[in-house]
Amino acid sequence: MSQRDNVYQRIPRHLVAVDCIIFSYDLVKKVLDLLLIKRDFEPAIGKWSLPGGFVREDEDMEDAARRILYNLTGLKDVFLEQSYTYGNVTRDTGARVISTSYFALIKHQEINDEVKGKHGAHWSAVSEIPDLIFDHNEMVARALNELRCQVRIKPVGFELLPETFTLVQFQDLYEAIYHRIMDKRNFRRKILAMNLLEKLNEKDKVNSKRGAFYYRFIPEKYSEFTRNGFYFDLDVN
Amino acid sequence: MSQRDNVYQRIPRHLVAVDCIIFSYDLVKKVLDLLLIKRDFEPAIGKWSLPGGFVREDEDMEDAARRILYNLTGLKDVFLEQSYTYGNVTRDTGARVISTSYFALIKHQEINDEVKGKHGAHWSAVSEIPDLIFDHNEMVARALNELRCQVRIKPVGFELLPETFTLVQFQDLYEAIYHRIMDKRNFRRKILAMNLLEKLNEKDKVNSKRGAFYYRFIPEKYSEFTRNGFYFDLDVN
Repeated sequence: MSQRDNVYQRIPRHLVAVDCIIFSYDLVKKVLDLLLIKRDFEPAIGKWSLPGGFVREDEDMEDAARRILYNLTGLKDVFLEQSYTYGNVTRDTGARVISTSYFALIKHQEINDEVKGKHGAHWSAVSEIPDLIFDHNEMVARALNELRCQVRIKPVGFELLPETFTLVQFQDLYEAIYHRIMDKRNFRRKILAMNLLEKLNEKDKVNSKRGAFYYRFIPEKYSEFTRNGFYFDLDVN
Repeated sequence: MSQRDNVYQRIPRHLVAVDCIIFSYDLVKKVLDLLLIKRDFEPAIGKWSLPGGFVREDEDMEDAARRILYNLTGLKDVFLEQSYTYGNVTRDTGARVISTSYFALIKHQEINDEVKGKHGAHWSAVSEIPDLIFDHNEMVARALNELRCQVRIKPVGFELLPETFTLVQFQDLYEAIYHRIMDKRNFRRKILAMNLLEKLNEKDKVNSKRGAFYYRFIPEKYSEFTRNGFYFDLDVN
């Protein structure tokens, strides 16, 4: 291709970033948490921020999000999904930066405290998020809304739970995500009717006298059912 | 801010584009259409492509999408929603270009043929889309999937119909979007039960002997119902 023909060379270029909305569920406190950091460069240095960074020249966008996630948490192979791209000219007060947000779901117990401590990362309950820089509060609100939709129509909630859990714990998770109380009988009936859980022989005896059986999600059943036209639907209205 | 402190200056910049997936519904042919153009610069000159363009320095991303839409169709105030951002390094064979896709819904009759002709734009039935450049077929597939979700949970289908329409025409639209036949009685019952349509006195006598009453969607009712906790749900499973 000759220089003259290459349209691309005459086009203005942009700073492009990714920002990560990292959700986790605290089983003990029964709270949906979000991982925040204190921003370490100007403008807005020292303010609460989503973890983020610029997309490198030779780096796929999703890889940039995975790099940031790995640097902060030490985790690979995490549930990660693109949320939205924020492209208003004045959204970042330092320069024009186009930013794509991604949301990740990680298990609380998997985060290495040492790694986390190094970067000054901090868990904040989703219901008590402080003022974040730029449009980061909007990013969180949109991702939370998407998470609420997703856990209704896909079994992604299990990404936030340990391998085995009680039905009470599973419902607590949904109540934390939706930030409201749900009817216990209805909820149990709906999740059990989908036949995606295996009931184990062990019981959790810490949280109730009679004890509550542990369950396990079976991804293979979900794949099989889905191939046959099944829709996950945990309608929580 | 001193030069030294300004992190932004040392960061590599990227070409950023938007691509538009412009859907329209042909009431006569009963077909969901997509607006395509022949690409007019290298690489891949002359190949079928989504209409798109680069984001300017002082331009919000959504404004870039609206500019492209306006240049091609002469339309403003069109239903437009962001779909997804494609950020793989090698997706465009000419250079590394990050592209955000938007999907638009326009009424067939509103497109000015003269404007359209100038740019060599061409309507293609969604079920018969040719090979498009780069990852544009993937962009269309994702947007079509989003459109299917949206018309189920929001009254956006009316964006594709004239002000007044028969129930048969409304169902034809859904059948074109989902590319399958639906049960007539069920469909009518569900849409009428939501009380969002006004039945007019006029009849369409062209398409049947007995004639079919025209209806009109009432956005004010939808807003009012939504404020009171109503969910639009035209479940077409």
